[in-house]
Amino acid sequence: MSPPLWIAAWALLLHGCAAGRAPRAPSTRSDIRDCTAEPPYLPPTATNTTARLAVLRSILRTHGVHAYIVPSTDAHMSEYISERDARLGWLTGFTGSAGTAVVTRDKAALWTDSRYWTQAERELDCNWELQRTTSIESIATWILKEVPAEGNVSLDPFLFSIDTWNSYSRALHGSGRTLLPLETNLVDQAWGDQRPPPSSSEIYSLPAEFTGSRWQDKVAGIRQRMEQHARRPTAVLLSGLEETAWLFNLRGDDIPYNPVFYSYTLLTNTTISLFAEQSRLSQEARQSLRSGCPGPLCVELHDYGQVSAHLHRYAQGNVTVWLGTEYTTYGLYAIVPQEKLLEESYSPVMTAKAVKNAHEQEMLRAAHVRDAVAVIQYLLWLERTVPQGQVDEFSGAQRIDAFRWAQEHSRGPSFESISASGLNAALAHYSPSNGSSRTLSAREMYLFDTGGQYLDGTTDITRTVHWGEPTPLQKEAYTRVLMGNIDLFRLVFPSNTAGRTVESFARRALWDIGLNYGHGTGHGIGNFLSVHEWPVGFQSNNVPLEAGMFTSIEPGYYQDGDFGIRIEDIALVVEAQTEHQSGEKPFLTFEVVSLVPYDRNLIDLSLLSPEQIRYLNSYYEKIRAHVGPELRRQQLEDEYVWLQESTEPFAVSSAGSAAAGSLALAALLSVLLSGLGA
Amino acid sequence: MSPPLWIAAWALLLHGCAAGRAPRAPSTRSDIRDCTAEPPYLPPTATNTTARLAVLRSILRTHGVHAYIVPSTDAHMSEYISERDARLGWLTGFTGSAGTAVVTRDKAALWTDSRYWTQAERELDCNWELQRTTSIESIATWILKEVPAEGNVSLDPFLFSIDTWNSYSRALHGSGRTLLPLETNLVDQAWGDQRPPPSSSEIYSLPAEFTGSRWQDKVAGIRQRMEQHARRPTAVLLSGLEETAWLFNLRGDDIPYNPVFYSYTLLTNTTISLFAEQSRLSQEARQSLRSGCPGPLCVELHDYGQVSAHLHRYAQGNVTVWLGTEYTTYGLYAIVPQEKLLEESYSPVMTAKAVKNAHEQEMLRAAHVRDAVAVIQYLLWLERTVPQGQVDEFSGAQRIDAFRWAQEHSRGPSFESISASGLNAALAHYSPSNGSSRTLSAREMYLFDTGGQYLDGTTDITRTVHWGEPTPLQKEAYTRVLMGNIDLFRLVFPSNTAGRTVESFARRALWDIGLNYGHGTGHGIGNFLSVHEWPVGFQSNNVPLEAGMFTSIEPGYYQDGDFGIRIEDIALVVEAQTEHQSGEKPFLTFEVVSLVPYDRNLIDLSLLSPEQIRYLNSYYEKIRAHVGPELRRQQLEDEYVWLQESTEPFAVSSAGSAAAGSLALAALLSVLLSGLGA
Repeated sequence: MSPPLWIAAWALLLHGCAAGRAPRAPSTRSDIRDCTAEPPYLPPTATNTTARLAVLRSILRTHGVHAYIVPSTDAHMSEYISERDARLGWLTGFTGSAGTAVVTRDKAALWTDSRYWTQAERELDCNWELQRTTSIESIATWILKEVPAEGNVSLDPFLFSIDTWNSYSRALHGSGRTLLPLETNLVDQAWGDQRPPPSSSEIYSLPAEFTGSRWQDKVAGIRQRMEQHARRPTAVLLSGLEETAWLFNLRGDDIPYNPVFYSYTLLTNTTISLFAEQSRLSQEARQSLRSGCPGPLCVELHDYGQVSAHLHRYAQGNVTVWLGTEYTTYGLYAIVPQEKLLEESYSPVMTAKAVKNAHEQEMLRAAHVRDAVAVIQYLLWLERTVPQGQVDEFSGAQRIDAFRWAQEHSRGPSFESISASGLNAALAHYSPSNGSSRTLSAREMYLFDTGGQYLDGTTDITRTVHWGEPTPLQKEAYTRVLMGNIDLFRLVFPSNTAGRTVESFARRALWDIGLNYGHGTGHGIGNFLSVHEWPVGFQSNNVPLEAGMFTSIEPGYYQDGDFGIRIEDIALVVEAQTEHQSGEKPFLTFEVVSLVPYDRNLIDLSLLSPEQIRYLNSYYEKIRAHVGPELRRQQLEDEYVWLQESTEPFAVSSAGSAAAGSLALAALLSVLLSGLGA
Repeated sequence: MSPPLWIAAWALLLHGCAAGRAPRAPSTRSDIRDCTAEPPYLPPTATNTTARLAVLRSILRTHGVHAYIVPSTDAHMSEYISERDARLGWLTGFTGSAGTAVVTRDKAALWTDSRYWTQAERELDCNWELQRTTSIESIATWILKEVPAEGNVSLDPFLFSIDTWNSYSRALHGSGRTLLPLETNLVDQAWGDQRPPPSSSEIYSLPAEFTGSRWQDKVAGIRQRMEQHARRPTAVLLSGLEETAWLFNLRGDDIPYNPVFYSYTLLTNTTISLFAEQSRLSQEARQSLRSGCPGPLCVELHDYGQVSAHLHRYAQGNVTVWLGTEYTTYGLYAIVPQEKLLEESYSPVMTAKAVKNAHEQEMLRAAHVRDAVAVIQYLLWLERTVPQGQVDEFSGAQRIDAFRWAQEHSRGPSFESISASGLNAALAHYSPSNGSSRTLSAREMYLFDTGGQYLDGTTDITRTVHWGEPTPLQKEAYTRVLMGNIDLFRLVFPSNTAGRTVESFARRALWDIGLNYGHGTGHGIGNFLSVHEWPVGFQSNNVPLEAGMFTSIEPGYYQDGDFGIRIEDIALVVEAQTEHQSGEKPFLTFEVVSLVPYDRNLIDLSLLSPEQIRYLNSYYEKIRAHVGPELRRQQLEDEYVWLQESTEPFAVSSAGSAAAGSLALAALLSVLLSGLGA
């Protein structure tokens, strides 16, 4: 996907959701800038960018550039980026995760989506125009207005996806302006020695017990896919950071929350070239990679910066290079002549990684059992401490992070914990900070969306709770979100079904009364890798669902200025048992992997069908069977008791959709009994 | 959409469905060719193409062409084509609706999809290889093998969509072969004076009572959309035949079943150019079109063949031409410089036409009431005559066509009637012929998918019936198809939802037991226009659903070699009444427009939920209210009685999904009563 789509789609999906529109800021607010005032007013959160812009503009002039486009992503189209790649943030002061800046010789503008409008007004100074859209058409229109005909519009081609490059190229085509790729990054030049240095921490091999298969077997599998492809590609180019990490069973910590390291791989039918800082490889990792030398399973190590030159040389031959267009930069793409490219949305490494083998499935399940322990500890701790008014969103987030760290194989959170009380949970993309954090209360709903990195798996779960008396709307909305979660989990569907075509089952119960949520319904997840793992999920550019894939299922509902609900569980795609079978492959369904009960206080049983209640009861049985023993093993007796209480089976007979028939019979019964004097 | 996709998608959707794979023909069958026999065996259905190929090849040599690609569509990417455009059929003998032929100097091959493999083996002679795929990659690979490096691969750019051209272009890029567009069609040259002449019948204005609005108002509306578009297009190019017919309220009969005529329109902000055979316009039509002359509402008439030259001249100016890339040919597209194009999937005429105004809605509803009368007459006639063994598929199709013709405003069938008994209904794309037609029987299921053209609307309905004892699987499958139909009709969904994301609701009841169908779930429909009207429907390239759109909803199930089921109704998208409303626009739902009851003999009530039964009962009330009076007006008393019987309300209390609760209460009741001696 192009960066704006790629990033925006994830961001919308996520942890922060764009359900409502951010309120437009009245200019009398003191926490946002007012550039029309005399003198202009800037809040303390704004960054003075005058000097930075001056330096960048002098560099633009040196290169004959009239406009320079700065994106928010890195050279690997990563969702999370390192400090060193936060060029947009440094240049503009804006710290949101998605945006595009354009600097001309006398103007500067930032484009971002509605989640970030208020934040941008807090962080930008008056050098910057804020453009409240992210469409490339809008950016290009602005550029055409500001850049003289015959002017040069420039960008770093290693920071833009193929699609985005093409969009700019089309928009400027025929306008007289030239779209000029410059391999040297002009923001980096301006940033100079203030730019954070590259990571120097160790790149290490995963212990064998935590790998799904040996890297040599993975390489053999990918080479087999290359041979079986009609176009007979001679090489696969890997530029997603998880691709190289997964392929070689290596991990690092270059990116927050994601145990990956800066790298590229060119895997050919006879050679393997890994581009990364060689000095950072552990002794063990180096031995593992070199164990097949010389030979087709020998990994040749090259410096990270060598990838372009190496690819250029390789592309001189009679070769065909397979790459994933969704996340390869235009810079790398343009190195290979068109006729030598095999362009597919995803590389075979991405699609192989998406289907977990039996051992990987077992590891993910095991990680979720321990993760459930941490979440249950947190829920019980909240129950005890919230009424005393001593917990706020930030200390809550710290607490659950601590519970996770205490679990075996923990490597910390898998993303910045979302911990949102009351109206904050309705805000898009909310994470608390130490300075401003709402106190949790038994009078408000509380939503937490958190996850952990463990050596055996990555987790991600959201629960929403209320310790007091929820309003009727809160209870109905929560129940309908839960019904959506259950309906999608219970769905039986043909093999090879696209997630996009079934995600509405998670929405229907809300739709029935005119409610909805504005984010995606789920995303893939890795084994000690990204918490958002492409290409699995329910978006239009995800691949069809196959047995062995893991995805989150996370419907929600967000009432502006009031409350927010999300229920998120991880699901494993498994074969379904059906009486018949249209087509050649077994039908599929979802197995729930997350193991934490829902808040009984928020469930209106009368809305649930008997099938939905039966699903809940069997889920609760499963939680008891898997988490109960682990709580005992960890000697968490209070939590064990809490779990038993929280997973008491629900009575099926009070079910809502059975109401018509049951009521008729009940009425009959009552008449008969009264007639009989009973 | 590209022609293969465009055509294949419709064909798969439709009237003929590709649920199962066509059986591979054993070479001992006498109805298919055997080119390995000595001498080769050809069935009587095969066409001798030796002479045609020889003529075409001499023309290829004259033009220096090494391979010539022949598609199945016309210059408007029409779904149905005229005899004059049946180039593929003339050249190959193959009469299926979708395929691509390539002729080199010594070879000839036809690519088509699984629906047509057996038919192709019956119709092709041994000059032709049959390629059992339709992928452009496969065609290109074959061409690369057969055409020498430096060779010319040619085609008529006015018969290929933009997408398809690009696919061929990419596939041949860098191979040394040249993709050579030739504006003169080489098959037409070979066909010579044997090619059917163009239609000479009248192009007429629709009477005012049958138009949704005056053409001048439609033109004003389109111009308003042009002004409101960010790119400020100066013109819209219309190349879909329904576009021009709809815009000017004109009709013709150049294409079977579709009341359209060969035409293009270039609508600019100040002028209107209509390209069609001027001599064919009725006096009235001509007067209407010229009534605004001179002025911006004056329609300038040009000959059909002048469109390219005119567009070329227009594109010299400072202009921006808006066109729909899904159905514009590469030939027209290439005339306009890239920077002067506004490319969207559909033109504003296509999207305006898709939303019917109040009068258009009323007309479509009225047409469906009369259409229901014809279908009910047919159902009653079948009930009476099938047991006597005198009806076959072909005579049945003739009979329903006759019933329709007798209705007011009828203009004949809207497509070739599908009338399929027993195992024939499981066959893809089945229409009976006079020579081979299965006799209808009370021991078999019967499926008919038919529709009518009326001056006020186009109809399309499918019913499946059984006059005897259906098998348990037939009954369960029929009931689940019906449940799917009901579930999608009952769905409440947000405005702007893509059909693709909700069509699975029509499948879930089947999926639950491992069944499915292999075609789309529905398509738009016109007011006395195409029975398959883009861009509405449930496919991935359809536009989001809006109030005022009409679409079919047509789930099915096909059991190879045994039986076939489809239930199809036309739906109008309407605003839903919901308690809440997320987003700015009201939620939507479907209102059923087709008014014919289902076969009670095939419904297993125990599978239906109370909500589904209530929906059925309210639907039946509606049928009685609308069709009953019309039957009386037409003095069809037997049909009236039949309708009353067929629309008796179902008992809700026996509902399936209420079974659990009801059974529990019933058991309790039984215990109590027995205990009380009752």
